[in-house]
Parts: sequence; structure tokens; C-alpha cells
Amino acid sequence: MPSPKLSAKAQSIIKGKNFGLLAELNPDGSPHLTPVWVDTDGKHVLINTAIGRVKERNIRRDPRVAITVLDQANPYSWVMVRGRVAERVTGREADDHIDSLSKKYTGREKFTKQKPDEKRVIFKIEPEQVVG
Amino acid sequence: MPSPKLSAKAQSIIKGKNFGLLAELNPDGSPHLTPVWVDTDGKHVLINTAIGRVKERNIRRDPRVAITVLDQANPYSWVMVRGRVAERVTGREADDHIDSLSKKYTGREKFTKQKPDEKRVIFKIEPEQVVG
Repeated sequence: MPSPKLSAKAQSIIKGKNFGLLAELNPDGSPHLTPVWVDTDGKHVLINTAIGRVKERNIRRDPRVAITVLDQANPYSWVMVRGRVAERVTGREADDHIDSLSKKYTGREKFTKQKPDEKRVIFKIEPEQVVG
Repeated sequence: MPSPKLSAKAQSIIKGKNFGLLAELNPDGSPHLTPVWVDTDGKHVLINTAIGRVKERNIRRDPRVAITVLDQANPYSWVMVRGRVAERVTGREADDHIDSLSKKYTGREKFTKQKPDEKRVIFKIEPEQVVG
């Protein structure tokens, strides 16, 4: 089954300087929520985290997620994507990607890692349902 | 174990005209996310929904939830509460409560139900973890 497409509105909200809230699953199956920076390649919702964080470990165990991105300019405008992480990308590409997110959200060209040796990972979320 | 207290900051964000994002669990265990109006009695996070909605059925099946409330005035200010729905209240109290939420969020004294016969329910979320 082809995955549902991100609408033009969804892509526009995700490309904007808007925050996402990512829900994944804790080891006991309960929901876990974290604010995230978001991006899209036109097909997937992309997020970027550090290997070893709670959300990274949760997604490695169970790739099912939901993410809502809120339009800062209009609190009644948002997009919700339910789906699963279909791909993870590490290394140079993930480092470059977090720098591009830093530029978008903070204006700074280089992302400041919390730990100098932290390893970044891009999660590509494949939409199964798109609402809003 | 006494449940963690909502901090003054958490209560202030929840009492403000700020939106929440509620995560609960679908029948297959995957996470489900919906935007909600929020309130607090100082101890619980309160939400109000209609009986039969997806989130209401999900919570009836599994009371474990997480909710994040974002401060509209400052996108880096938010509160996340993880916990479980400890109590549900229906009837007149739930109807009055949705009217008070309507007043807070829309300025209108009376909430406009989507269906004339819809039954409202207050979910009282007991915090197990409070972040932010």
C-alpha cells in the first residue's frame, strides 16, 4: 500500500519554523512525548536526535510513532502524522542535518551538541495517516 | 507513593489559554495524538471530551497518557505530564466544565456541541512525572 502523501499544507507547516511533538512508546508500552525540531523531504517527516536518548531507544525498540506539528502563527492550524520510522541515517549526513535544523530554528549555522562525542541520527517517519 | 505535584509554572501554563497535545494508546498499542483544551484543579490535569471519540475509547481501555502543554507566548516554554487517568466525571459537571473551557478558549459562554446529544466527560490525569 503506498503511504499517504503529505499535503501541501502539511509540508508548509513542517518546513516552517514550527515545533513538533513526537509520541513514541516506552518499554512498558506507555506513551512518551517530546518536543522536536522537524523537517521533511517531501515524503517523510524527518526528526534528528542523539543516539542513546529516551526517544531514540524507544523508536529503536518500536518504530510506531505519531507526531503533531503546530503552526506557531495559528494555534488552530496543525498537522498530525501517524506512522512508523522506516529509515535511520547516521554519520555525516545526520550531522549536516542537525546543523541545517539549528540554522532554521536558532539562526546559528552550527548545532551545539550537548556532549562533544554525541552521535546524531535522522529518523524518517513514513506516514500511514495524515490529519489536518 | 504520592503523585508528583504540578509546579507553579506548570499550573500557570495549564491555566493559560494554551493548547495541550494528548497522547494515548490505540487498540494495537500504537500512540495516538490529539490537540485538546486543558485545565487543572491544582493537582490533576483536566481534559474534556465526548463519549465515543477515539481518545475517549482509548483511555477507557488503557488509562496511561502523556500530555504536553505549550506556552503560546514562548515556544521553548512547555510542561509535560506523564500519568494516568485516575477519575472520569460525566453529567452536569462535565457539561459545565466544557462551557468554562469554551469561555477560556473562545470567549463564548456556551460550548457548541458537535452533536446535540453528545455526552461530555472530564478526565482527571494524575501526574506520575512532571517535566518542564
